[in-house]
Amino acid sequence: MADRPLSAGQTAAAILVLALVVGLAGDACHVAAGTTRYEWDGVPAIWRSAVWFPVALAGSVLAAAWLSERAGTPAVRERTRADAVAGAAVVLALYAVTALLNDTPTTVSVVLVGAVAVAVWAWWDPSPGALAVATAAAVLGPLAEIVVVAAGASSYREGVDGLAGVAPWLPCLYFAAGAVAARLWAATRGA
Amino acid sequence: MADRPLSAGQTAAAILVLALVVGLAGDACHVAAGTTRYEWDGVPAIWRSAVWFPVALAGSVLAAAWLSERAGTPAVRERTRADAVAGAAVVLALYAVTALLNDTPTTVSVVLVGAVAVAVWAWWDPSPGALAVATAAAVLGPLAEIVVVAAGASSYREGVDGLAGVAPWLPCLYFAAGAVAARLWAATRGA
Amino acid sequence: MADRPLSAGQTAAAILVLALVVGLAGDACHVAAGTTRYEWDGVPAIWRSAVWFPVALAGSVLAAAWLSERAGTPAVRERTRADAVAGAAVVLALYAVTALLNDTPTTVSVVLVGAVAVAVWAWWDPSPGALAVATAAAVLGPLAEIVVVAAGASSYREGVDGLAGVAPWLPCLYFAAGAVAARLWAATRGA
Repeated sequence: MADRPLSAGQTAAAILVLALVVGLAGDACHVAAGTTRYEWDGVPAIWRSAVWFPVALAGSVLAAAWLSERAGTPAVRERTRADAVAGAAVVLALYAVTALLNDTPTTVSVVLVGAVAVAVWAWWDPSPGALAVATAAAVLGPLAEIVVVAAGASSYREGVDGLAGVAPWLPCLYFAAGAVAARLWAATRGA
Repeated sequence: MADRPLSAGQTAAAILVLALVVGLAGDACHVAAGTTRYEWDGVPAIWRSAVWFPVALAGSVLAAAWLSERAGTPAVRERTRADAVAGAAVVLALYAVTALLNDTPTTVSVVLVGAVAVAVWAWWDPSPGALAVATAAAVLGPLAEIVVVAAGASSYREGVDGLAGVAPWLPCLYFAAGAVAARLWAATRGA
Repeated sequence: MADRPLSAGQTAAAILVLALVVGLAGDACHVAAGTTRYEWDGVPAIWRSAVWFPVALAGSVLAAAWLSERAGTPAVRERTRADAVAGAAVVLALYAVTALLNDTPTTVSVVLVGAVAVAVWAWWDPSPGALAVATAAAVLGPLAEIVVVAAGASSYREGVDGLAGVAPWLPCLYFAAGAVAARLWAATRGA
């Protein structure tokens, strides 16, 4: 499928919308299942999220997509706009699955989310560049959440907080999101 | 893979078999998990289903597949017979997953099944035609089940009946099935 | 992607590493969830597995991959090294999912794991040759485990032991693993 190319502004807007949908729907799953909780009163909410969460998440996804594009590392697979929808949907499905794992032994939850994350990378774009972005996301995303939890703005449920206050499977979820973000700019813009 | 083409009758028969396998196995999951219950005594059963269910379902799938083929909307991806097996298997896996969600918050179950359904469409054939068939299935399928439940022939478990008596994730499951049905005729017949 | 070909020894070593990672991580899930238990004291353990398990499993995977390659049945899809990673990750994810099904009705667990297994075959290589290897694995793998359980070396949890002492979904899990193993040699070696 040859997508008609978008301008840079349209591409950025489309990625923001995609990231907001995934971030808000995924976070709503975590809040509904009691996986996470927002601790500060009086912060405006969008759906189930404190307003700062979708802003930070969508900004990070856009930055990751744009910086990966600028870095120019070669892709193994060319991805279309439909693939971008599939990639975002798979990451959202994995996000929702993590909301089912509150009573699951850590070994099982980490292996499950980690295996799917590796499969997402190997399917979406098994390139060293995407691996680097995914790995960076797997480190930086949980680190940022650890700071947020330490600041008292949100918390993970007892038993799902074994990684310095955040979920042990969180790096795997960020890995999958980072792998898709790595080629999201080109896929969304169109050839 | 170039499949040897089937006749129209063979294609219809193959689609009926595929739909019966998916419908009966998926429905057996729902009955076994207590997601749904048949309420009328004395109706003959096939496996765990009242006899009218597989007949209605297989007829609907065949009608959707044949009408989509007749409508002639262009496909984005050509699908083979092996893809038809993969598509049917993925829909059946999603069907079985919904039987695991009886105690899951509605937000989580709807986001999970919805995200997988969108991914199925984007993978199988991300075309406007398949989107139209999937959307029609997502509306008409649950409407038909709402009528069946209102007539007292079957029921959804308490807590999984929030959409006028049927499950809130039911439109998402029908969406996935409709997306695959949209190109099932061509995929099953062979090039 | 054109992979640089590996030698036979390198190919075998890479397959052993892949099988060990999947086998040890998957088995750790089963032990952590209480799906399986090792019954003999004093046997050295690797992670959560008695030492004989990963040895037997990795040896079987290597044998299946090598014998399938020697048999020379034609593949429908050529698979790359990245596909091998994806295939192994999908099998591991399915392995982890089975550790979530201890309280699931047998109908649901067998349909779910069976549907995913069929999808894996239809995606990875929908050829008669891969079907034969997958079917052989679905018979021989559970048979070997039935012997191990009968010998008292390990056991499946009550309620997940309905197939002569092993899990009813076990043939489906072996089917998926066998389907991937059937083309693992060529995929790992590279074109």
